[in-house]
Amino acid sequence: MFLRNAWYVAAWGHEVGRALFPQLVLGQPLVLYRTADGTAVAFEDRCPHRRYALSKGSLQGDNVRCEYHGLVFNPEGKCVYVPGQPNIPPRMRVRSYPVAEKWQWLWVWMGEPELADPALIPDFGWHDDPSWKRVGGHLKFGGHYQLVIDNLLDLTHETFVHTRTIGNAAVAETPMQTKVEEPYVHIERIMRDCNAPPLFKKVRGFTGNIDRFQFIRFEPPCHVVIDARGVPAGTNDLDRGMRWYVTNSITPETETSSHYFWAVTRCFAQDDEAISELLHDQIVKTFLEDKDVIETQQNRIDSDDPAKRVYDINADAGAVAARRIMSKLIARESTTVSA
Amino acid sequence: MFLRNAWYVAAWGHEVGRALFPQLVLGQPLVLYRTADGTAVAFEDRCPHRRYALSKGSLQGDNVRCEYHGLVFNPEGKCVYVPGQPNIPPRMRVRSYPVAEKWQWLWVWMGEPELADPALIPDFGWHDDPSWKRVGGHLKFGGHYQLVIDNLLDLTHETFVHTRTIGNAAVAETPMQTKVEEPYVHIERIMRDCNAPPLFKKVRGFTGNIDRFQFIRFEPPCHVVIDARGVPAGTNDLDRGMRWYVTNSITPETETSSHYFWAVTRCFAQDDEAISELLHDQIVKTFLEDKDVIETQQNRIDSDDPAKRVYDINADAGAVAARRIMSKLIARESTTVSA
Amino acid sequence: MFLRNAWYVAAWGHEVGRALFPQLVLGQPLVLYRTADGTAVAFEDRCPHRRYALSKGSLQGDNVRCEYHGLVFNPEGKCVYVPGQPNIPPRMRVRSYPVAEKWQWLWVWMGEPELADPALIPDFGWHDDPSWKRVGGHLKFGGHYQLVIDNLLDLTHETFVHTRTIGNAAVAETPMQTKVEEPYVHIERIMRDCNAPPLFKKVRGFTGNIDRFQFIRFEPPCHVVIDARGVPAGTNDLDRGMRWYVTNSITPETETSSHYFWAVTRCFAQDDEAISELLHDQIVKTFLEDKDVIETQQNRIDSDDPAKRVYDINADAGAVAARRIMSKLIARESTTVSA
Repeated sequence: MFLRNAWYVAAWGHEVGRALFPQLVLGQPLVLYRTADGTAVAFEDRCPHRRYALSKGSLQGDNVRCEYHGLVFNPEGKCVYVPGQPNIPPRMRVRSYPVAEKWQWLWVWMGEPELADPALIPDFGWHDDPSWKRVGGHLKFGGHYQLVIDNLLDLTHETFVHTRTIGNAAVAETPMQTKVEEPYVHIERIMRDCNAPPLFKKVRGFTGNIDRFQFIRFEPPCHVVIDARGVPAGTNDLDRGMRWYVTNSITPETETSSHYFWAVTRCFAQDDEAISELLHDQIVKTFLEDKDVIETQQNRIDSDDPAKRVYDINADAGAVAARRIMSKLIARESTTVSA
Repeated sequence: MFLRNAWYVAAWGHEVGRALFPQLVLGQPLVLYRTADGTAVAFEDRCPHRRYALSKGSLQGDNVRCEYHGLVFNPEGKCVYVPGQPNIPPRMRVRSYPVAEKWQWLWVWMGEPELADPALIPDFGWHDDPSWKRVGGHLKFGGHYQLVIDNLLDLTHETFVHTRTIGNAAVAETPMQTKVEEPYVHIERIMRDCNAPPLFKKVRGFTGNIDRFQFIRFEPPCHVVIDARGVPAGTNDLDRGMRWYVTNSITPETETSSHYFWAVTRCFAQDDEAISELLHDQIVKTFLEDKDVIETQQNRIDSDDPAKRVYDINADAGAVAARRIMSKLIARESTTVSA
Repeated sequence: MFLRNAWYVAAWGHEVGRALFPQLVLGQPLVLYRTADGTAVAFEDRCPHRRYALSKGSLQGDNVRCEYHGLVFNPEGKCVYVPGQPNIPPRMRVRSYPVAEKWQWLWVWMGEPELADPALIPDFGWHDDPSWKRVGGHLKFGGHYQLVIDNLLDLTHETFVHTRTIGNAAVAETPMQTKVEEPYVHIERIMRDCNAPPLFKKVRGFTGNIDRFQFIRFEPPCHVVIDARGVPAGTNDLDRGMRWYVTNSITPETETSSHYFWAVTRCFAQDDEAISELLHDQIVKTFLEDKDVIETQQNRIDSDDPAKRVYDINADAGAVAARRIMSKLIARESTTVSA
């Protein structure tokens, strides 16, 4: 059960061009492309005639031709040509989805089109800020998207899972503050005078202890932004420290798999390509450790009694709040639909 | 749901000899073999004792021995030997299926044996006609058999899917005539003064335009014969042209996979081995293009809402009629059985 | 449906040490390890917090640390540490299973812990008898455990499946005697003056005929012991003959797969390493033949009508009795639980 009236990241803007790009979102096969003027289009990836994949078809100007029987659809999804017959059945339309392009990403709206307001897209303004520097990517995890959200809302696991990159003992030892302002959840963890984790040392050359800050914001349905900072202990001096935003948008692919769109945007060493490369590599390495965790978790959930209760710890406050918000939104949506 | 009281092609005659030959038909594992006098036999491929695969056993003269516990069955399916005990349990029988050998193919009857009349086998007389020349084969498609029937009853797709072999623009542009004479569906498409498709040029050396003819006959449950012709435009001269029958028998393997038994039988260049080889290769290439289409379609159907409506075009008239006939026959059969 | 109040072999004793050892038993993922003093421990392989696999964690002294969020559990399953919080939620426990170590095997009790009496473990005393020599192993079969039990309670199949090792014609030809003494089933087959099967010749050098004896005991839920003997025909002279116990403990892994723990313990040529190696290799070869049979059987069962009746022969008496005993025990257990 997914929240349908919401914007989901379907692709990086640069991934989609003048070619048919298939993507599975909320269990629905989509095909994306751009018209000649660069406008992005998203269709259900099934021909309304015999359900062949439109993504196996071809672009004819701004239209898509199904390469099974040759039907052609315009960017609105309307059939404009059927081989061998002059009249077009009026209901021959492929379902099209509202698309918005913002913060370098292509967003699709999976619910009622008339509710698709681009103003509802979360604010990731730093993606477009030229004074910051961004690295990013797209991974797939074999687990339910909420497992990934849980993971991001309790970074305790960095201490155990990410010892080679961003984990230090302080994360697990330091309690978090959680503040719920529906539909947002804010979590902060401030770690004073602690060891710098390996990646921090590599990118910023810390020699002594640091003060480390994590400010996390959850926004429904699946967006987690981490404002992460580190400065030489007691200095509060960002010029000798570091700050980056980790943007995580976890688009459900199916009930048991997720797209992981991510970006790390920093405000230091912006022109240092070596740092960019290192950061990209280390972040991918870190997220692949999460992938292994989440896929193991999904496996253990799949083979378990679905009614079995799990037990919480203090560190779950944020994740539990986020799940509660999502349950409420999904319940409200299904009530609205059935009304 | 399959029509059970019908003949289905289970194998080419030459594929089955004095060895146990397993084949999955309508979801039922079968084992076929020939007795010493050449008579073909078909059994359920499960020992009635403990369901081990008889196809993993051995022929003992005309009998089959199960190689788990040594029970022996005669060609009628009756158990004739149980190791270590003199009496044979009278109900120890393996289910046997009526088999007929006709048109180079072995046909099995999957329903009530007393209804298995070989006269009900479709007429593919050209397979045995020495004045014609045949090439043929057996493929497997990962899709429901009706998707393959649909494919064959609307050759519009040749224009889009088979551009390298038998497709030309004329197929998609020219409307078909459909005539339903239950249980048959007849479809014809006559394309005057059109380009010759690549394969036609290769086998017949056409230099100018041709008149192209397609006469198609559907016969339940899963047989489609295409009488295809091409002659220099305006000549009606088969001596300078070509004609072949494409026989397609699509035996359901499971609900989502199909055996594709095919033959192309021609009445020109009968002794030209190079033409036979070329034709075989090009037809296999063509059908593998269909395989890709049908497997993609099946994938998109499997992930779709089963209740979702699809929309028809004029070219579907034949395929829709064939599906309607099949639905009627299957409904009638299930009524008869329950009565 | 499995019998839960029973001891099942989970591992060879030597397989489990100071490392986390995962094993799937009755569909339940377990993790086994030994404390510093050698005591074996078995937990559910899911953290009670977020169900991550404890087997992916680490040993901290005698405790297990979950490597997702760092919770630590003592050998009783009680949580003794939660990072970043002083109080431990009292219900934060991982389910632990009674373990017993006997006859070189680690046994787990999958039902109600208070019923776990080690005295209920079958008597395989020869495993520990220094005057006997043992080879053994652990295989996995892709079939329901009762198919393996059936296989062992009717050795008729040796004649057909194991012709290269332990099969001779006499097994199939000679009827068995079956005696049911609930919950045991005893089966014996005495084959006088028969050919020695290939493996018997190899390990004991028989040149003439032998008298061959098989005494089989089934004990619920899944243990079959075969006391197998061969002596020169008419001599009853074990000094020139052979005797071994084949211990077979078939632990259900899932509804369609099984662990096969086995040992062959002999009372001849105890110090001959070459015989030990040969025996190990030949027994594995033999059991892999059974694996192929059982996996084929499971495949044919999976694709069959579950209500379809199978038919018995005389040789099934023991296996049928064993299944009846198991059905009764499982029915009784489910009544007790629901009462």
